[in-house]
Amino acid sequence: MVDFNDNSHRRYNILTGEWVLVSPHRTKRPWQGKEEKIVREIRPSYNAKCYLCPGNERAGGHINEDYTKPWSFVNDFAALKKDVPLSKFKSGLLKAESESGICKVVCFSPDHSLTLPVMRVEAIDDVIALWQKEFKKLSDKADINHIQIFENKGDLMGCSNPHPHGQIWAQRTIPQEVAKKNKQLREYWQNNHSSLLGDYIKEEQELKERVISENENFIALVPYWAVWPYEVMIAPKKQHRNILTLNSEERLDYARIIKAVTIKYDNLFKISFPYSSGIHQAPTDGQDWESWHFHMSFYPPLLRSATVKKFMVGYEMFATPQRDITAEMAAETLRNLSDIHYSNLQ
Amino acid sequence: MVDFNDNSHRRYNILTGEWVLVSPHRTKRPWQGKEEKIVREIRPSYNAKCYLCPGNERAGGHINEDYTKPWSFVNDFAALKKDVPLSKFKSGLLKAESESGICKVVCFSPDHSLTLPVMRVEAIDDVIALWQKEFKKLSDKADINHIQIFENKGDLMGCSNPHPHGQIWAQRTIPQEVAKKNKQLREYWQNNHSSLLGDYIKEEQELKERVISENENFIALVPYWAVWPYEVMIAPKKQHRNILTLNSEERLDYARIIKAVTIKYDNLFKISFPYSSGIHQAPTDGQDWESWHFHMSFYPPLLRSATVKKFMVGYEMFATPQRDITAEMAAETLRNLSDIHYSNLQ
Ligand SMILES: O=P(O)(O)O[C@H]1O[C@H](CO)[C@@H](O)[C@H](O)[C@H]1O
Ligand SMILES: O=P(O)(O)O[C@H]1O[C@H](CO)[C@@H](O)[C@H](O)[C@H]1O
Repeated sequence: MVDFNDNSHRRYNILTGEWVLVSPHRTKRPWQGKEEKIVREIRPSYNAKCYLCPGNERAGGHINEDYTKPWSFVNDFAALKKDVPLSKFKSGLLKAESESGICKVVCFSPDHSLTLPVMRVEAIDDVIALWQKEFKKLSDKADINHIQIFENKGDLMGCSNPHPHGQIWAQRTIPQEVAKKNKQLREYWQNNHSSLLGDYIKEEQELKERVISENENFIALVPYWAVWPYEVMIAPKKQHRNILTLNSEERLDYARIIKAVTIKYDNLFKISFPYSSGIHQAPTDGQDWESWHFHMSFYPPLLRSATVKKFMVGYEMFATPQRDITAEMAAETLRNLSDIHYSNLQ
Repeated sequence: MVDFNDNSHRRYNILTGEWVLVSPHRTKRPWQGKEEKIVREIRPSYNAKCYLCPGNERAGGHINEDYTKPWSFVNDFAALKKDVPLSKFKSGLLKAESESGICKVVCFSPDHSLTLPVMRVEAIDDVIALWQKEFKKLSDKADINHIQIFENKGDLMGCSNPHPHGQIWAQRTIPQEVAKKNKQLREYWQNNHSSLLGDYIKEEQELKERVISENENFIALVPYWAVWPYEVMIAPKKQHRNILTLNSEERLDYARIIKAVTIKYDNLFKISFPYSSGIHQAPTDGQDWESWHFHMSFYPPLLRSATVKKFMVGYEMFATPQRDITAEMAAETLRNLSDIHYSNLQ
């Protein structure tokens, strides 16, 4: 048997049916490339120039509510718009169709200085409650068949405003990353009459080596097939198709584990850790997605330090995703980090 | 019919079977996010500290040849290694297998100061000749079933050394981006007995609106389904499965069009334009890939200016790739740029 801790190998992603190339021996390579700039800014709780702070004016002339809890509004520069009639185009080998949807911005807190890891658990719980409310409202619309909740955190991830916020893009068609999971989850359900992700979680709970945090209702782990160096998945142990069916104790546990994971992230390089996170849930197309098991993933770009990121470039774009450190190494590092935010330890 | 120049829509990629979301109206959005640093350095023809310059020592103690033409060597920190025996692992829902291969570095020129757009056509022709030689040598090996030739250009694309160079990663398995194209090309061939890409090129030659450069044997266009803002594809008009069957006149035309495209790129924002490029060719797994039609794609990260890039983040990672400007707008901009490099116009 080849030692996978020291030899290149491919790992299979059971949720997408795709592979990732792992090259553990490559961590020895010296780095002479780009170093990112770290901005260690201390932000005020209110910034008069921030278009997300309560009461301020946004581009386009709208005035923000004087919100005191998580608050959402329709994106002023939405990539998706309502009321675009369905229109299909085909000419020779060119094929396109109109797409409609709704893009919303979700402010996590009125306090400009905060981020999820330094928010109180109850305040994160309020964010989840708003996600639930939005998910419910959007899923009730006939022409919304998929709802993507996500956060881009940090300017490395294209985030244009440090005010704590995420987004929701809801649309008519099922996006391709979700379509892959639909297929894998459904196939497993048909063959085994149980949740693919639920069974995977049980396996990881026994093995322990990729688990980084756990509470009664939720688990956080580095998936066996992780692509990004410190990729993490959070999932409920019990099968929930989407976030709507969480009871209040489960929702609190969800808030607790989001806080735990993002604290570990910040502690890794002692910076406000950049990432994109997203929640994959059952489509809202009226089908009975009994195989679905919602989960939240974090894709952070950093690899070696606060300033050296993993580039998903030539080979990764043209061939297949590639990583250097193994999922087990990343999990061990994250697991061993403190559960107390570094800013409280200084 | 909805106007696709002003409304969000999805376009179908005939080569991968996937979709891209296009939001043309979103170009009006103001940008308040990250601005990249531009480094306008004038490099010397030889740099004593560069580990790719002729005669210099590399990390690991190897001494570079005193090369005067394009030159290649095995990557000292290769992600793939030869002689890893095939070994499969399966335990519950965990599935992996060893991967073997060869990673090479291809220096395009001994001259440290050059890049493809400012090299002479004959010198680019020499690079293609070396790609051919490497492709031939690697494809003859029994355990090499796919060969990925690519270039990461610029530190924005994770390139750690500005010396003009690219890479080749050759491996046992077929990477997933190529597997998608295998499927689409083969299906079309079975139904139509002609090259999917060849037929597409004919259509674009008639429509003209996405073509940016052309010579007798090659065409360069912004594909209808382009993901990156200024994505470009170069392909031979006649069907070639890989670069080996190009005759000397075709090879020169290939060199000419690489120069033409990369000059336009540099002229766009008057900088040395970053991108990842890659050549997709028929797998070398011994199967008769009669449906294959090789092509080279350029994925550049910049969107609005030399300092503002397109971020493929939250929505794009979790749902589907998204772009703002349409392929037609990008093609018009690129087509209208001068064919003479800006450094020669000043
Ligand atoms: O091989 P290099 O130039 O050291 O590394 C660069 O290209 C590789 C292949 O696309 C990527 O895996 C690396 O993330 C990137 O930094
Ligand atoms: O919507 P924002 O924050 O303006 O934009 C950011 O997130 C979007 C959704 O992932 C991306 O399409 C943009 O490239 C990115 O800059």
